[in-house]
Amino acid sequence: MCELLAMSANVPTDICFSFSGLMQRGGNTGPHKDGWGITFYEGKGCRSFKDPLPSAESTIAKLVTEYPIKSESVVCHIRQANSGNICLENTHPFTRNMWGKNWTYAHNGQLTDYLKVLKIKAHIPVGQTDSEHAFCYILDKVHYQFGSTEPDITTLFSFIAEQCVKINKLGVFNVIITNGDYLFAFCSNNLHWITRKAPFGEAKLIDAELTVDFHKETSKNDIVTIIATKPLTNNETWKKMSSTNWQLFHLGEAVLSNNKD
Amino acid sequence: MCELLAMSANVPTDICFSFSGLMQRGGNTGPHKDGWGITFYEGKGCRSFKDPLPSAESTIAKLVTEYPIKSESVVCHIRQANSGNICLENTHPFTRNMWGKNWTYAHNGQLTDYLKVLKIKAHIPVGQTDSEHAFCYILDKVHYQFGSTEPDITTLFSFIAEQCVKINKLGVFNVIITNGDYLFAFCSNNLHWITRKAPFGEAKLIDAELTVDFHKETSKNDIVTIIATKPLTNNETWKKMSSTNWQLFHLGEAVLSNNKD
Repeated sequence: MCELLAMSANVPTDICFSFSGLMQRGGNTGPHKDGWGITFYEGKGCRSFKDPLPSAESTIAKLVTEYPIKSESVVCHIRQANSGNICLENTHPFTRNMWGKNWTYAHNGQLTDYLKVLKIKAHIPVGQTDSEHAFCYILDKVHYQFGSTEPDITTLFSFIAEQCVKINKLGVFNVIITNGDYLFAFCSNNLHWITRKAPFGEAKLIDAELTVDFHKETSKNDIVTIIATKPLTNNETWKKMSSTNWQLFHLGEAVLSNNKD
Repeated sequence: MCELLAMSANVPTDICFSFSGLMQRGGNTGPHKDGWGITFYEGKGCRSFKDPLPSAESTIAKLVTEYPIKSESVVCHIRQANSGNICLENTHPFTRNMWGKNWTYAHNGQLTDYLKVLKIKAHIPVGQTDSEHAFCYILDKVHYQFGSTEPDITTLFSFIAEQCVKINKLGVFNVIITNGDYLFAFCSNNLHWITRKAPFGEAKLIDAELTVDFHKETSKNDIVTIIATKPLTNNETWKKMSSTNWQLFHLGEAVLSNNKD
């Protein structure tokens, strides 16, 4: 399996604190040592750092921890390979273009029978993972449903959620998808989130000796949501998502969901 | 304008030496301070490092200089903005997927009337540059010409070259395009290349106090071609390409061209 981390914020925010915790799970406090990647959006542009090496030992991961890149949307993944070799083309997140936007995706879980069930025409995977195949399937479905016209947000993400429900029947499918503006999270069995806003408090990492006082690091209008497969801090209350629950985040806040809890 | 650097090699090779020279031109020995980017292929996978900051001052560029990433295909660009703001979505190289491969592109030059002349349907640009627009135009043309069937190499790159000739009529269009396996260079007015193989000698950078003895760094079967807008060393003989000349490289060697020199 793997671990996911994502962020949606209303002001460009760095993710150094959360990433410092997560990277330890890539070969140190966790077994997810088969590569890692992180994609930062800055406006419509995005840049990814990727490495097929364990994040806990990666020179590039160290740079990402120490060099604060401020972003409104981030997707991060550390990998424990179960489908496809350990190599760069199988390293998440995956980014593709649609409607003049960069769409980025990462997956936690495992799928069976996906080659038989999830037929693809227009979006051919580069690597050999079930994860990238499922992403290409979603893009294909969206492409043939909406063509060159981008639908409204509710229609689009409800349709994407329908595809996730279908894919989820093939195994475990915890997923993050973003276009930099909106960030979508679909829970199969393991996804948590927390929204931090004023009054800010202190947060303490589970995986590293690190505490941050967000009151000192933020301004009073900042709103930041962090989504992760497992909570990263042990002194805050994370919301656990239920199976087939999805949430859409925009500028740091939950704006749409199928939540009936 | 901008500067281009690319590499094709028959064994995974690092580009630290050449990049050390080029990055100095991004705000130090040259005026190309409006961002930079580099894409490394490792098999079918690729990873890019990008920064809208000047390469000569960039923490990420420093990492790329010091951390040898071994690759068989590299595309690098340092930008002096003339079309589109200085921001991440306008930073080269640009990568898009076609036929299950990552296609990467970078451009040196400037185009006029491109919005009117280069009509696009399927591949919508993310940013605002003439460069990305021209890349999307080439992908569109290839898509409508060949559909889902990848043609043979000669047919494909001859067709891409035809599009380059057309685009070149709108201004200056020095271009690198690669799928990681083959690397294509089209010269508008400024592109040089050099193939290094045994017996290897010493090379001395123009832009930094750095000399490398390739004899000590390589094995006797290594073949590496470097392509750049301006030569990076001053004690080797670089081939200057002529206008509308194109060259295709594979595993470090020139394999196809329209050269009648």
